[in-house]
Amino acid sequence: MTAPDAAPQAARPVLPVRPELAGEVPYGAPQLDVPVLLNVNENPYPPSAQVVADIAAAVAEAAHGLNRYPDREFLGLRADLAEYLAVESGVRVAPEQVWAANGSNEVMLHLLQAFGGPGRTALSFAPTYSMYPEYARDTHTRWVAGRRTEQFDVDPAEARALIARETPSVVLLTSPNNPTGTALELDTVRAVLAAAAEVPGGCVVVVDEAYGEFRREGVESALTLLAEHPHLAVSRTMSKAFGLAGARVGYLAASRELVDALRVVRLPYHLSAVTQATARAALRHAPELMAQVGSLRAERDQLVLDLRDRGLRVAESDANFVLFQVGQDRHAVWQGLLDRGVLIREVGPEGWLRVSVGTPEETAAFTAALWEVLGI
Amino acid sequence: MTAPDAAPQAARPVLPVRPELAGEVPYGAPQLDVPVLLNVNENPYPPSAQVVADIAAAVAEAAHGLNRYPDREFLGLRADLAEYLAVESGVRVAPEQVWAANGSNEVMLHLLQAFGGPGRTALSFAPTYSMYPEYARDTHTRWVAGRRTEQFDVDPAEARALIARETPSVVLLTSPNNPTGTALELDTVRAVLAAAAEVPGGCVVVVDEAYGEFRREGVESALTLLAEHPHLAVSRTMSKAFGLAGARVGYLAASRELVDALRVVRLPYHLSAVTQATARAALRHAPELMAQVGSLRAERDQLVLDLRDRGLRVAESDANFVLFQVGQDRHAVWQGLLDRGVLIREVGPEGWLRVSVGTPEETAAFTAALWEVLGI
Repeated sequence: MTAPDAAPQAARPVLPVRPELAGEVPYGAPQLDVPVLLNVNENPYPPSAQVVADIAAAVAEAAHGLNRYPDREFLGLRADLAEYLAVESGVRVAPEQVWAANGSNEVMLHLLQAFGGPGRTALSFAPTYSMYPEYARDTHTRWVAGRRTEQFDVDPAEARALIARETPSVVLLTSPNNPTGTALELDTVRAVLAAAAEVPGGCVVVVDEAYGEFRREGVESALTLLAEHPHLAVSRTMSKAFGLAGARVGYLAASRELVDALRVVRLPYHLSAVTQATARAALRHAPELMAQVGSLRAERDQLVLDLRDRGLRVAESDANFVLFQVGQDRHAVWQGLLDRGVLIREVGPEGWLRVSVGTPEETAAFTAALWEVLGI
Repeated sequence: MTAPDAAPQAARPVLPVRPELAGEVPYGAPQLDVPVLLNVNENPYPPSAQVVADIAAAVAEAAHGLNRYPDREFLGLRADLAEYLAVESGVRVAPEQVWAANGSNEVMLHLLQAFGGPGRTALSFAPTYSMYPEYARDTHTRWVAGRRTEQFDVDPAEARALIARETPSVVLLTSPNNPTGTALELDTVRAVLAAAAEVPGGCVVVVDEAYGEFRREGVESALTLLAEHPHLAVSRTMSKAFGLAGARVGYLAASRELVDALRVVRLPYHLSAVTQATARAALRHAPELMAQVGSLRAERDQLVLDLRDRGLRVAESDANFVLFQVGQDRHAVWQGLLDRGVLIREVGPEGWLRVSVGTPEETAAFTAALWEVLGI
C-alpha cells in the first residue's frame, strides 16, 4: 500500500450537487402549530380505537419476524387492495394487477423510472398537483404542462393535439384534480387514451385518483376503463379516504405487463413488513372508514353551497377540499385566516385558495373566520 | 367537447418500457421454503418479546394520529440514530447530519439522485454488492467497477489512479464488503477521499457500513473521518445488527450540506409515522440488540476457523457472513446444501459461496451438510 495524502484542509471539495437541484428547497407545505389544520387535505378523523388496536396487533405479529426481510411481492396486501377496489368501484382486478409503494408519490416515481427518463416527456394539464414537476425533475424526464379550461377541465380536442405534438411517454391525468377538485369525464380519459395509443413507442396514461373515493354520485372511476386499455394505470392512496396519511401507502391498478415493468425498477423490499401489516389491518375496516367518506362528501357539498351563498366563486369539487376565489390579494386572506387560527393552502391559480374539508367544527371555524376576513 | 374515438382494439399500444430495462427481471435472492435460511445475511435472532411489545405500543401511539402526514424531517429519529452512533463508534454527530430512508437502498438512491445522474459516473470496486449497478441504472448514472485485490481489498494507489482517470461524482466503498466480508483500512478510505477531493466538480465518497457493527476489535469505522471530510457519507442500516430487516430503515451520517442535498430529492413524507415509531422503539433496546452482535461475531470467527480446519480457503470477515472457496462447480455444492435443507447464496467470484452466520444450531446444520457434500 502507498501512504495516502492528508485530506486537503484549505480548499474543501465542492459537493457535486446536480445543477438542476442547486438552490432548490425541499418540498413541503408549511407545518405550523395552528388549532385548525385545513391545508394538506388530510382526513380529519383519526382511526377509531378499534382500528388502532387492530393495527397494533397486526404490527406486533409482524414484529416477531422483523429480523427477516419482508415479502418482496406482498401479494397478500395486493389481494386485499384488489378486493377493496372491487367493492368500492365494482371493478375486479387480479392481485398481480395491483402495485403499491410508500405513498402514491413513490408509485409515481416507479412509473417515471420505468416509462419516463432522459429523452422522454411527461405531460399533464395545469393547474394540477405541484409535485409532478419534481418527480419529472428527479427522473430526468422532460415536463410539459398543457392548460386546463376556465372550469379546470381538460378539453379532449386540445389534449389530443398536444399529445400528438409532444409525443409524451407518460400522460398524467388527475381526477379529481388537485388543487381544483375537478373530476374528468370518462369520455375525456378515453380521448387521451386513444391519443396515447398513437404515440410512436407507446405512451402510458396515469389517472391519479388520490381523491377518487370522494367523487359525487354518478361520477365514474377510470378503473372501469382498465380491462380495455393495457397502457392505463389508475392510482389511489390510503392517505385520504382511509385517513392513513401517516402510514404512507399508495397503490395503482393496471395491466399485468405494466405492473411487471414497475417490479423491475422498485427497490427490493421497498414495502416494510410493518407497512404491509398496517395497511392490511386498516383494509379490514374499510366499511367503517368508508362511512366517514360519506359524511366528508356531505360536508364538502354543504361548504360549496355556503361559500356560493356569500357570493364567492367556487370550483366544482369531487374531492375532500374546495378551491374558491377571493380576488387579487389572496395572501392577505390566507394570513387573515392564519391570524384567526385557521391554516389553509395558498395554492392554485392566482386569486384562489384551497381549503380541506375538516370536521363540522373545523369547517365552522373556517367559514366564521373567512366571513370576518372578507367582511361578507 | 369533441367526441373521442374509440380506443383501438386491434393494435394494442406498446408500453414505453425504457430500453435498458427490457428483459430485466426484478432483483431478489430466491425465496425458498427451507429449514435453514443462511442466504441473505439476516440476523437469525427475532426481536425479544419485550422489543415486540415496545414496538407494538409505539405503533399504537402513532396510529392515533395516522390520519395526519408524518413528520417530514423526523428529527426525533435522527437524534436517536445520532445517539446510537455515538455509543457504537464514539463519534458524535448532530441530528441534522443524519439521514434515513426505507432501507439503505433508498439512502443510496437519494445519494445518486443528488450527486449522480445522466452524464455522471459512479465508481466502486468489484466484487461488491450486486445492487449498486441497478441503483446506477435506475438513476441513469454511468457505472464503473474497478477491481479488488486477490484478498478482496482495495489498493489505494490503483484506486487513486482510477478515480483520477474516471472522474466519478460518487465513489462507493463497501466496508465490510458484501459478499466478501472485507473491511477497508482507514488509510485506504483516506486515500480515496483525497483522490475524490481532486475531481473537478466534486466527488462524494460513500462508505457503506451496512455490516459495520460486526467488525472485529481494532477495526475502525469511517465515521471517525466525518469531521474532516464534508464529501464523505457513511451509511448504516438497522437490517443487520439490529435484526430489523423487515422494518426497512437505512441511514447515513455526513456533513450538514451533504444531508441538505438529500432533503431536496427525497419524496415528501418518505418515512412513515409507523416506520419512525418502530425504529425509535427498537433503538431504545440497543444494548440488548448489540449483545447479540457479540455472539454473532464470535460465531462468525469460529465458523471461519472451522472451515479453514477442513482445508478450505476463507476470506477474512468483519461481517455476519463468510465467503469460502469450493472450487469450480459451486452450483453443485450450493444445490447439495439445498438438498440437505440449507439455503446459502451463490454469489461472489466464480468458485466461491457465501453463507450467513446463523444461530449455533443453524451453523452446525450448515457445516454438517457441507462436510457431507464436499466429502471432507
